[in-house]
Amino acid sequence: MMTQDRPSPKSSTSGYVVGVDIGGTNLRMGLARSNESDPPGTLVASWSASTVGVRYHPDAIIELIRSGLEDLLKQAAVPRSQLKAIAAGAPGITDFETGVVIVTSYLLGWRDVPLRTMLEDTFAVPAAVDNDVNMAALGESWAGVAAGKSDFVFLAIGTGLAAGIFLNGNLFRGSNWTAGEIGYMLLPGLAAEPTARGKPGGLESVLGGEGIKAQWQARWSEAATPLSRDLQPTEIFDHALQDDALANEIVLQSGSLLASAIYNISLVLDCPLFVLGGSVGLHPALGQCAQKVLTGWGTRVQPQLVISSLAADAQLCGAVRQALSIIPLDA
Amino acid sequence: MMTQDRPSPKSSTSGYVVGVDIGGTNLRMGLARSNESDPPGTLVASWSASTVGVRYHPDAIIELIRSGLEDLLKQAAVPRSQLKAIAAGAPGITDFETGVVIVTSYLLGWRDVPLRTMLEDTFAVPAAVDNDVNMAALGESWAGVAAGKSDFVFLAIGTGLAAGIFLNGNLFRGSNWTAGEIGYMLLPGLAAEPTARGKPGGLESVLGGEGIKAQWQARWSEAATPLSRDLQPTEIFDHALQDDALANEIVLQSGSLLASAIYNISLVLDCPLFVLGGSVGLHPALGQCAQKVLTGWGTRVQPQLVISSLAADAQLCGAVRQALSIIPLDA
Repeated sequence: MMTQDRPSPKSSTSGYVVGVDIGGTNLRMGLARSNESDPPGTLVASWSASTVGVRYHPDAIIELIRSGLEDLLKQAAVPRSQLKAIAAGAPGITDFETGVVIVTSYLLGWRDVPLRTMLEDTFAVPAAVDNDVNMAALGESWAGVAAGKSDFVFLAIGTGLAAGIFLNGNLFRGSNWTAGEIGYMLLPGLAAEPTARGKPGGLESVLGGEGIKAQWQARWSEAATPLSRDLQPTEIFDHALQDDALANEIVLQSGSLLASAIYNISLVLDCPLFVLGGSVGLHPALGQCAQKVLTGWGTRVQPQLVISSLAADAQLCGAVRQALSIIPLDA
Repeated sequence: MMTQDRPSPKSSTSGYVVGVDIGGTNLRMGLARSNESDPPGTLVASWSASTVGVRYHPDAIIELIRSGLEDLLKQAAVPRSQLKAIAAGAPGITDFETGVVIVTSYLLGWRDVPLRTMLEDTFAVPAAVDNDVNMAALGESWAGVAAGKSDFVFLAIGTGLAAGIFLNGNLFRGSNWTAGEIGYMLLPGLAAEPTARGKPGGLESVLGGEGIKAQWQARWSEAATPLSRDLQPTEIFDHALQDDALANEIVLQSGSLLASAIYNISLVLDCPLFVLGGSVGLHPALGQCAQKVLTGWGTRVQPQLVISSLAADAQLCGAVRQALSIIPLDA
């Protein structure tokens, strides 16, 4: 479904909004002025807390957000009455119209959580809820490398893999809010059939962080590398930039798979720009390799790959942008 | 690029429009009234001619269209002054805004042909030009099985393979007019890299008509089938419906590949409906097989596959719809 996003932020309101990025390990929040003279993405205060232990319980997440809000208002010496709106990104399939988080991964284990209503009931301001990758795409379109671009795809590559799709200046969310769930894409070299519902997709099992670590470990003993067996994906990529043979092999495999996925998406969408984000996607070795593979193929499809400029802040920034867009006209 | 399509046909104009379907072997034309009381897709006259021998020459195609128009007006006893608009579908990448056919397959071999201008100069009425698969999707959305659907994908499976994408009630054409060029999609079981520019894509080489014939012939001698070695794809599919073992094998391979392609498109677009058209796609055996494969996978992605109801008329019908939409308000 192509939902027309709400109007641009108002220029004259003297108030504040809060953006929330709900993750499997951390919850991050930012306070911003509803003031168009601030550069996009400007935060006047930020806050974060661990979600380990509470992430399975939406009520506990709301309580965490309540603590964070109190702290943010205190940091900035802003009265509670100045809060005009709140928006949260959640790591799962989210009905943007009703504000219900339909399903998340095992990390949170949520099902049909009416998060927008919970936020509105708790904080008595308008709220919006969206998938976290959509929020990140919105952030990049507002204050990042895709600012001013009407058509681009944001690829979040971390533990999993998903795309936030911007078409004609708006997020494209699909008929069942699942547009961009590309972690399950079928590609040469992967299984011929999709993995079962609820399990990680075949592509993200190889291209995601855990997959990259697993590949490294599987080849480590034969490769006779002096490097440790227990490296993080970004450490492996660092060694590739320093020309370690096994690390290069892993990057080439991951970069080729990423190029294939981007190629297939491009065949469907004919989209000129891909923004790479997420802990794995932010590393320059991966994007450079994928771009080189795509260029080498020499096909008509030649999208530009760029690394997110907002990095870990993309989702939070998008949530702030979304909150700014739902401030009521009479606020 | 998501181009806002032009306004709906006017209800009160007393005039006629012509739709043209330019193909590698035939050119087909239809005359329709610009009258909303006619059911969508109603033709008052139709005409066709072979394009063999003339298809390489856009000027010769224009002459063919001129002959067809004369014949159509004569058939319906309509004066030339009653022609209000003309639209043509061409088998290639087409800039809808400028009306230039950028490139077609070897069948026509066109490069940068300003077809809209040529039509307007020749017939002195407003003209529109689009890719033929987009025209077919437009036809299905107006008068076919996708009538009233705002989001669907039309898959043309014939010699080649391409998709016409409808999002939010409009054709989605992409930033470089190549959205839906899925004949090159990378899938398990196919080559790991795209075929070179200008050559048929890896997927269409197997799933398209020539690919299906080639598979049949390659396995024919070993299969000890009583059937002829020289069958058309639809004949092979007919034999599958009658339970011939080799034919079933070919259908299962093609249907599984089609299911994989539809699955990948669905991951990106989250689109609930796929309309199958083209000489190969119209055969019930292929769609039934692909639907069964998708259902068997049991994933969250479960699009509905339906066979085009306009069949070989989809493109012509879409061209008529496009022509109706460009009648000037003062005509």
